[in-house]
Amino acid sequence: MRMVDLIETKKHGGELTDEEIRFMIREYVDGRIPDYQMSAMTMAIWFRGMTPRETAELTLAMEHSGDVCDLSAIHGIKVDKHSSGGVGDKTSIALVPWVAACGAKVAKMSGRGLGFTGGTLDKLESFTGFRAALTTEEFAEQVNRLGCAIAAQTGDLVPADRKLYALRDVTATVDSKPLIASSIMSKKLASGADAIVLDVTCGSGAFMRDLDAAEDLARTMIDIGRRAGRRICAVISNMDEPLGYAVGNILEVQEAIDVLRGEGPADVTEICYALGSRMLVLSDICPDVESARSLMKKKLEDGSALARLADMVQAQGGDPELVWHPENMPRANIRKEIAAPQDGVIVRMECDEIGNASMILGGGRAAREDTIDLTVGLILSKKIGDAVKKGETVAVMYANDEQKLADAERRFHGAIDYAPAGTPAERRPVVLRTLD
Amino acid sequence: MRMVDLIETKKHGGELTDEEIRFMIREYVDGRIPDYQMSAMTMAIWFRGMTPRETAELTLAMEHSGDVCDLSAIHGIKVDKHSSGGVGDKTSIALVPWVAACGAKVAKMSGRGLGFTGGTLDKLESFTGFRAALTTEEFAEQVNRLGCAIAAQTGDLVPADRKLYALRDVTATVDSKPLIASSIMSKKLASGADAIVLDVTCGSGAFMRDLDAAEDLARTMIDIGRRAGRRICAVISNMDEPLGYAVGNILEVQEAIDVLRGEGPADVTEICYALGSRMLVLSDICPDVESARSLMKKKLEDGSALARLADMVQAQGGDPELVWHPENMPRANIRKEIAAPQDGVIVRMECDEIGNASMILGGGRAAREDTIDLTVGLILSKKIGDAVKKGETVAVMYANDEQKLADAERRFHGAIDYAPAGTPAERRPVVLRTLD
Repeated sequence: MRMVDLIETKKHGGELTDEEIRFMIREYVDGRIPDYQMSAMTMAIWFRGMTPRETAELTLAMEHSGDVCDLSAIHGIKVDKHSSGGVGDKTSIALVPWVAACGAKVAKMSGRGLGFTGGTLDKLESFTGFRAALTTEEFAEQVNRLGCAIAAQTGDLVPADRKLYALRDVTATVDSKPLIASSIMSKKLASGADAIVLDVTCGSGAFMRDLDAAEDLARTMIDIGRRAGRRICAVISNMDEPLGYAVGNILEVQEAIDVLRGEGPADVTEICYALGSRMLVLSDICPDVESARSLMKKKLEDGSALARLADMVQAQGGDPELVWHPENMPRANIRKEIAAPQDGVIVRMECDEIGNASMILGGGRAAREDTIDLTVGLILSKKIGDAVKKGETVAVMYANDEQKLADAERRFHGAIDYAPAGTPAERRPVVLRTLD
Repeated sequence: MRMVDLIETKKHGGELTDEEIRFMIREYVDGRIPDYQMSAMTMAIWFRGMTPRETAELTLAMEHSGDVCDLSAIHGIKVDKHSSGGVGDKTSIALVPWVAACGAKVAKMSGRGLGFTGGTLDKLESFTGFRAALTTEEFAEQVNRLGCAIAAQTGDLVPADRKLYALRDVTATVDSKPLIASSIMSKKLASGADAIVLDVTCGSGAFMRDLDAAEDLARTMIDIGRRAGRRICAVISNMDEPLGYAVGNILEVQEAIDVLRGEGPADVTEICYALGSRMLVLSDICPDVESARSLMKKKLEDGSALARLADMVQAQGGDPELVWHPENMPRANIRKEIAAPQDGVIVRMECDEIGNASMILGGGRAAREDTIDLTVGLILSKKIGDAVKKGETVAVMYANDEQKLADAERRFHGAIDYAPAGTPAERRPVVLRTLD
């Protein structure tokens, strides 16, 4: 079997066999297929796409390119959720203990990642002493006992994706549906969950800007999951503006705690309900989404969801007192109210640019070795559809450096569009579509 | 400027600027753009194509990626011809001295190449002692004196093409019109000719199998040549069966000599007239193709074309006696007549497979370091449209190894299709189209 023949096949729109796909991934990871052949292949895939069978086989080949998590020590159905990312996405921090309080087993592997804010693990380090590096035994024991754990990946999971993603990034082949879907799903499958709820974000702050494209990606990932024998469904959520009001690590953790107190922003709370209820249904804990929402409401109102966050933080070495008193978390030195430059109605909030403003303040990571300032970020006072008067506060920024603050402020102003007062502005609901 | 952005542009069907194309070739040759980015680009070009301006700029950037021949020491218009290759193509050996005898200045750089038979230089070594390695001074002096020389390239011509072609070969991006055209034309332009006649072959033994595709490629190359300020035209010739009857190095040289004696096969003779007359017109020696053909006919009949071959061979150290007595060239040990397996009319001769038969006998080069057996090959007795009786000779093979002969014979039989006797078989003329 020769890679050049496989490229030729795909170039002409042909379908690769399972054996050919496994050969390609195995030899690429082992260094016997060079990058220059793989990049010609990924470009051919960009143009020709892949059939559902090819996409699923590619995902499985990638999943098995390295270590695979063995979560068999955890009793019952292990459920996980995956978000395709966005700005202000603090969902996991509230959602994971909440559904655990409802009886689910959530074994969540997470990353640190590059981007506007830290990953979930960075955010959890807002709880002084929090330890993300658990052994497989510690991880399983905690999930069995508390119903949840959020830990860093151990072992060498999906090396094929690491190598392939780095290549796609420099050869303009990132934006290919089968390659995106196989990249996400290979990692999810290797993480060992039995059931997966996907949160496919859509809008100016998401990878998918178009709703139909987001649905198409979601369906592709669902198809892969089912072919791999997993329970899986998806929610497509709005990312035309940041989720909630807080952007930045500690600020987002505090907002997640607000959600578990029953005082969180409506959109963050609703996405937690939408994802959590599906996690409970897939876990066979509730027969349908409606009863699952009721159970979640009960566990929110009786305080057990918040208590479970405190338990999880404590189990992983963090200070649980900060769950009860998040106001004691460290604060940035500078607090500045950002004023609206004119009267009007907010009609656009370029999500990426608001994320960049937070990153400029020091809240994100441009390179893997960067350190994150957990205290900085911003809290929006207004969102799309809100009317403002000139000089009224649209956001509050938290910074530790005047120069960075000035840069971030300029960036923030560029991200907001105003229309004349009285203009009706369409604000999309947080849940755009559900694919059960 | 970043290569990844250029790939992105081409991927979406955009046009690259001259500056971007020059950047891409310069940085690639210098090793600052890696192969994996260039192969993603060539695949994007395979799908999106290039505009005439882009193709011409790519060609010029490649031409100037290394040394360029300086033929200014040669007086008058330097004319060259280029064939896109085929089986049994001995045209250059007859054509070059013939048009020189008519007064043209033919400064021909040639290669050895891989493939079914040797290149022109290998064939010329049938004249014992022939020396292909001339200095630029020797080359220019000989062309000024005799009107012709056929020599190996000196200097480091078009390194961009060497590097790019090797990459395309293993990434399934050889068959892209702008990449083929720029590869051929960059080398022709760097060879320094003022006027170029292209012989674009078409059929089962050629790279272009389809006549319209061949014309499209020819027009692209003409456009490049004109944008580069050269005189250029093209002939599209039939390669559905070998050119002439002889396939193999010495056998082909002997057939070329037959042409210059006025006793050559009609198709080889005609392609020489078609190409040669255009070389004479582009050289301002004749006002039109008709008068050029008359001049060629005269130089054939008075023996001066054949004499010029002898002069050229002698000037380059070869034995000119072999031009007058080609029967004295070395012969293969085994001569075998290949019999038709049935009655019928030959309706197909898969050119590539006949070439492969000759290669199996030892007449071609699979790898650059292979040595060629100049004596082996085959002479067809029949061609497309000819009727045969079972047992009648369809070809004579010349071999030095019984096993290779058996393999070649099997291959040869597989290349011929017979239809019932009386079936009309379409035989295309050798010149399919001309683009003046």
